[in-house]
Amino acid sequence: MPEINGNKINLDFSKGSGLLPAICQDAASGKVLMLAYINEAAWEKTLETGEAHYWSRSRQEIWHKGGTSGHVQRVKEVFADCDDDAVLYCVEQIGGAACHTGFETCFHKKIAADGSISIIGEKVFDPKKVYKK
Amino acid sequence: MPEINGNKINLDFSKGSGLLPAICQDAASGKVLMLAYINEAAWEKTLETGEAHYWSRSRQEIWHKGGTSGHVQRVKEVFADCDDDAVLYCVEQIGGAACHTGFETCFHKKIAADGSISIIGEKVFDPKKVYKK
Repeated sequence: MPEINGNKINLDFSKGSGLLPAICQDAASGKVLMLAYINEAAWEKTLETGEAHYWSRSRQEIWHKGGTSGHVQRVKEVFADCDDDAVLYCVEQIGGAACHTGFETCFHKKIAADGSISIIGEKVFDPKKVYKK
Repeated sequence: MPEINGNKINLDFSKGSGLLPAICQDAASGKVLMLAYINEAAWEKTLETGEAHYWSRSRQEIWHKGGTSGHVQRVKEVFADCDDDAVLYCVEQIGGAACHTGFETCFHKKIAADGSISIIGEKVFDPKKVYKK
């Protein structure tokens, strides 16, 4: 491996047609909170502001997580993976929940070997109240 | 949210042209080890065998992680996310390292706000010896 300490990161956005997966992990508990996508602008905005930004594939726009709900993600550490095509945001999740359904983590469906689902955890907030929909 | 406890999971492979991201986390330490992709066959093989299987985008084949190195991932828990388009494998990583470079985690490049890289951690194994290349 070449000596890369101190070099600038150059993420490989070509593999995913301009989008790369970003894993978001709670910096304190270690829980994986969500997976979303970034484009180059969302990545730069995250580094610049210290708050997690993603690319919304459904809305086709930069998504400042928590911009609507107030539940922003304060980025404590950022990692890139070995081949520069995935990133990991370690964050402080304001409001205590990352999932739009009100659960702490989007990964709240535990899957058994036969494929059956068990919901893990309780809702931290009521999405109807937070999103006023 | 409908009552889904006990229902069978039905992952939405349509969003990623047949592939979905799979996050792999060390079940004991909580460290995020890697991100790879699954197709439906890899997903079923993982549930069936209890060892992590992915889809290798470079080799275009099912990838039994550790099949070459012996460093398999014994799956302790599996989660799907809220919209069924990403999964989380919580594993026991045999050999102590998930990354083909010899690091414990693929996410060993810490990125500063200015984009500069710091390598975190030490190599657990020498990839030249493990892969005999």
